Amino acid sequence: MITIGIIGGAGFTAGELIRILLHHKKVNIDFIYSTSNAGNKVSAVHQDLIGSTELVFTNTINPKVDVLFLCLGHGNSKNFLAQNTSFNNVIIDLSNDFRLQDNAKFQGKEFVYGLPELQKEKIQHAQYIANPGCFATALQLAILPLASERLLENDVHVNAVTGATGAGVSLSKTTHFTWRDNNFSYYKPFTHQHLGEINQTVQQLQTGFDSEINFLPNRGNFSRGIYATTYTHFKGSLEEAKALYHEYYKDAAFTFVTDQELHVKQVVNTNKCLLHLHKHNDKLLITSCIDNLIKGASGQAVQNMNLLYGFDEKEGLELKGSCF
Amino acid sequence: MITIGIIGGAGFTAGELIRILLHHKKVNIDFIYSTSNAGNKVSAVHQDLIGSTELVFTNTINPKVDVLFLCLGHGNSKNFLAQNTSFNNVIIDLSNDFRLQDNAKFQGKEFVYGLPELQKEKIQHAQYIANPGCFATALQLAILPLASERLLENDVHVNAVTGATGAGVSLSKTTHFTWRDNNFSYYKPFTHQHLGEINQTVQQLQTGFDSEINFLPNRGNFSRGIYATTYTHFKGSLEEAKALYHEYYKDAAFTFVTDQELHVKQVVNTNKCLLHLHKHNDKLLITSCIDNLIKGASGQAVQNMNLLYGFDEKEGLELKGSCF
Amino acid sequence: MITIGIIGGAGFTAGELIRILLHHKKVNIDFIYSTSNAGNKVSAVHQDLIGSTELVFTNTINPKVDVLFLCLGHGNSKNFLAQNTSFNNVIIDLSNDFRLQDNAKFQGKEFVYGLPELQKEKIQHAQYIANPGCFATALQLAILPLASERLLENDVHVNAVTGATGAGVSLSKTTHFTWRDNNFSYYKPFTHQHLGEINQTVQQLQTGFDSEINFLPNRGNFSRGIYATTYTHFKGSLEEAKALYHEYYKDAAFTFVTDQELHVKQVVNTNKCLLHLHKHNDKLLITSCIDNLIKGASGQAVQNMNLLYGFDEKEGLELKGSCF
Amino acid sequence: MITIGIIGGAGFTAGELIRILLHHKKVNIDFIYSTSNAGNKVSAVHQDLIGSTELVFTNTINPKVDVLFLCLGHGNSKNFLAQNTSFNNVIIDLSNDFRLQDNAKFQGKEFVYGLPELQKEKIQHAQYIANPGCFATALQLAILPLASERLLENDVHVNAVTGATGAGVSLSKTTHFTWRDNNFSYYKPFTHQHLGEINQTVQQLQTGFDSEINFLPNRGNFSRGIYATTYTHFKGSLEEAKALYHEYYKDAAFTFVTDQELHVKQVVNTNKCLLHLHKHNDKLLITSCIDNLIKGASGQAVQNMNLLYGFDEKEGLELKGSCF
Repeated sequence: MITIGIIGGAGFTAGELIRILLHHKKVNIDFIYSTSNAGNKVSAVHQDLIGSTELVFTNTINPKVDVLFLCLGHGNSKNFLAQNTSFNNVIIDLSNDFRLQDNAKFQGKEFVYGLPELQKEKIQHAQYIANPGCFATALQLAILPLASERLLENDVHVNAVTGATGAGVSLSKTTHFTWRDNNFSYYKPFTHQHLGEINQTVQQLQTGFDSEINFLPNRGNFSRGIYATTYTHFKGSLEEAKALYHEYYKDAAFTFVTDQELHVKQVVNTNKCLLHLHKHNDKLLITSCIDNLIKGASGQAVQNMNLLYGFDEKEGLELKGSCF
Repeated sequence: MITIGIIGGAGFTAGELIRILLHHKKVNIDFIYSTSNAGNKVSAVHQDLIGSTELVFTNTINPKVDVLFLCLGHGNSKNFLAQNTSFNNVIIDLSNDFRLQDNAKFQGKEFVYGLPELQKEKIQHAQYIANPGCFATALQLAILPLASERLLENDVHVNAVTGATGAGVSLSKTTHFTWRDNNFSYYKPFTHQHLGEINQTVQQLQTGFDSEINFLPNRGNFSRGIYATTYTHFKGSLEEAKALYHEYYKDAAFTFVTDQELHVKQVVNTNKCLLHLHKHNDKLLITSCIDNLIKGASGQAVQNMNLLYGFDEKEGLELKGSCF
Repeated sequence: MITIGIIGGAGFTAGELIRILLHHKKVNIDFIYSTSNAGNKVSAVHQDLIGSTELVFTNTINPKVDVLFLCLGHGNSKNFLAQNTSFNNVIIDLSNDFRLQDNAKFQGKEFVYGLPELQKEKIQHAQYIANPGCFATALQLAILPLASERLLENDVHVNAVTGATGAGVSLSKTTHFTWRDNNFSYYKPFTHQHLGEINQTVQQLQTGFDSEINFLPNRGNFSRGIYATTYTHFKGSLEEAKALYHEYYKDAAFTFVTDQELHVKQVVNTNKCLLHLHKHNDKLLITSCIDNLIKGASGQAVQNMNLLYGFDEKEGLELKGSCF
Repeated sequence: MITIGIIGGAGFTAGELIRILLHHKKVNIDFIYSTSNAGNKVSAVHQDLIGSTELVFTNTINPKVDVLFLCLGHGNSKNFLAQNTSFNNVIIDLSNDFRLQDNAKFQGKEFVYGLPELQKEKIQHAQYIANPGCFATALQLAILPLASERLLENDVHVNAVTGATGAGVSLSKTTHFTWRDNNFSYYKPFTHQHLGEINQTVQQLQTGFDSEINFLPNRGNFSRGIYATTYTHFKGSLEEAKALYHEYYKDAAFTFVTDQELHVKQVVNTNKCLLHLHKHNDKLLITSCIDNLIKGASGQAVQNMNLLYGFDEKEGLELKGSCF
């Protein structure tokens, strides 16, 4: 039994982390830190937890917990660690502060990029984890098998749509219900910040790849999930592509290749990534779906913790989906 | 041709007013006042108007326009008129500042309650109009025929659900997409502020009515429309009830009684109120549907202007519905 | 470890049952019967189960399983048992065929009404369970404490809205996306079939109650959940009401009384019922929320099985909610 | 004043046509033909029309009407005309039966492809119009200016999402609310039938273009609208692209180029197409939005009729949008 603490407890990812960890058999939640909510019941903020927990937010950190999860806005993890130097156990950071090699070392800590399908062993031996971004997870899982065999030949074309939880709990024009309901739009065309992580991984596997990953992210009028379509030139047959993907993911705990065409609700409220392959002329089309808050954030964080501690990789993560 | 000005031009009701008046054959929009948006194109805020208008928001009021529409938050119409005393032509106020008899006189101006189905003649001879509330419109249209014949015998039970535009453009927890999507909840049970207008009208028609109107308003996870179910004791047959309602609304331009069971999208983007009657034992169940922003606000404001100026009551208001 | 079989495996309630039982530690799914899908993978119909199960639908029944769950359309459970007489172990029926006393005995089997909050002991000693209806669950949980103390004084007014899964997987005009999206409507006013169960329970607790339960069911434009508001005359104070409800539900595994105003997503994808009390003048307003497919169907069926077998009442039912 | 008849009156496109033509000042609806609904009120099927029309469906065709609109399923227009040979006035067909050159001549009638932005003059002099497909409209308007200047250099990449009305009124698994709500998926990758029209137009403007138009259509969880993103190599600057598009569309009645980033609700319930241009490195990204049922079907059909008869091109089509 290990003890854990959560920093930034009022947001979406912290909420999902709490929901998952409340039923994790090897974990005790020691504290949930939120300065703005200190003294309030956790169930007053994460209101579905009425009847599930009597935990109260705190503004005091217990530096002795075994694992610290940082659920802070991008840029704030670095600030937090700079101001709280006493913590020397395991840290799993859900922000983008330490995902790139250039930023992975901080105060003597070295963060390992926590994508189990890329580098499970490194994670098992890590102490500090930089948890991948949500789009970055969906997009990398779509192309890892190709890059691992140096089969990315030229431009990759990606269109992906995310639910509104991807934008966080803060209010903005595009998260207002009257705006988002029955609506659709893109944002940050070709320049989404997750391209950094994605390109880093591609270079790690297929050094020298010099074509472009053209990525159009979209705002969908749903709450949860990422649906990504990726296509690129592929010489082999569909069967060869399937064999490659099945082989690459044969030991993956949550990533599955299927012959069914996909829709995003198949993965909602689960830690799964589902992948589908389709071939048209010389193009291979890969569809990948994840729940942006679970496999794209809090679920993957728990998966990383499980790996790091040698727990069953699925512990706490065999979640009942919410498919309709 | 008359000229009009709009105060508070960036909100939902102003937007709908502009959309309607751009195609009104007797009206010229002279100015749209918005301090926060002065100098910006109207189509930069009401973004569907690209290609429809080159109007620009102003922070200068032209006191010579024939009609001034006040689209301000509740309480602000009074403040605005107190600070802008030079305007002496027609005023149509969409807030709740002047709807109750106790508040209807202000600075020598006397506001007439602008529900055409209640008092068309008074409106035709008015100079200052207090436009009814959205829930108040739907609920009064459900019971006007009964009250007009003094047939309200005892308690009235009303459950109504409104789209998220009813809460205005400002952001709040319950208008965040991730909260509202696929959700449902009540608010202000039995105490919604529109009960004031409703009870005032009931007393006007059926003096001495002393039972209660039990009103539960709900937040629906849709953008537009009000769906209200009202039931109360009724001695007569269903046929008698239908005859009463058909007679009462026989000259109404936009309020129709139908034998079809209703759904709220039948009235979306129109100035209609649809009514349906059902009898179960001694209870008469009346369903009423309106678009909260049109018949419940801006459309009714234009209808009142049409009546007041002797225009065709339907001018500008024969809108193509958006039923799906 | 017990073995179970599911009859009618392709519908919503069977799907939820499978999702729950796959992770239930005391249960082995022996077979899932579906004539129309025999031979197909379960994950080809319940498509979120890719990666979770390799089970295949069968058209053969194993009469030796310990528990048989009937997930058939209303009327079909009776037909099924008439044609399959060899089964003599535990039966949990999710239809409305055996819920009323008049129908509870069939072929020597006597069905017990499976609402744990009403009669946990009877369920613990039962062999045949008639699982309650979804609206019936939400509405009874709202008034059980009052009826148990004979405090229902006169008419009860109920307005409830259900998600589209309540209408089943079959296609109809009102389940077409273009109709239901952003829409709202009632159906079966004052005559919903669940009133039978509700009135039976009220008579069981408060014999002689002779006022009416006025129930307006509505179709909401969301997929899951029931949100019900119930009000009736109550002499006592709000504090007395709260004390009564807290006492009544103090041992309930999944039903909780809270001071927070409720929204339906607080219970989505859980087996919880949340209750809130509000007092206005002499009226007590009770809000109750459940997931129609879980506490309103498959989750409660598992809860009944747990009670009947002496398993932990919560086994398999500590589900991660899907609150946004 | 001309008279018109509508064949196939119960579907979505017929409904929109009726809604538009009821308020068109030059048109009288003579009959609405529907064998399945003959004798029923039009407002019993298109239920928002209660109070707007007393028209009744007929199963008799008046061959003397000036214009016949065919709102039939794909393949059925040909069948209909084969069986109804007496009609020799104007025909506007909304199916895909006559859009391609190879199919454009039938029984001595020659159909002109009715995309006003492509060939307004031809339409003005036509008698038979093949109205473009919805995706085909959005996608062609995105690239017409480039193709007209022979500036399509190599592959075009298109991702577009359509509302559920695009699938028609018939029920199917993917139009069931519980499936579509909060969901997203693609269909017919790279092979959508509208590619035929699109490629035909590209060849008409830029003969010899031999790269591919890679088109991924998606099902969105909204009811109306098409949102399409198209990118391709473009040598010039963003300013040059804007100048090209502004010039090409300077006389277009409903197609506008804007500097605002777009969302699909800006065009819902209007006959507009809005276009936005963005440049990233050597890629030009064009966003185009239309209402699939109006500019993508019935509105464009009326626009074509207006052109053909010399009416004001905007007559009947200055519709109030339904932007939220």
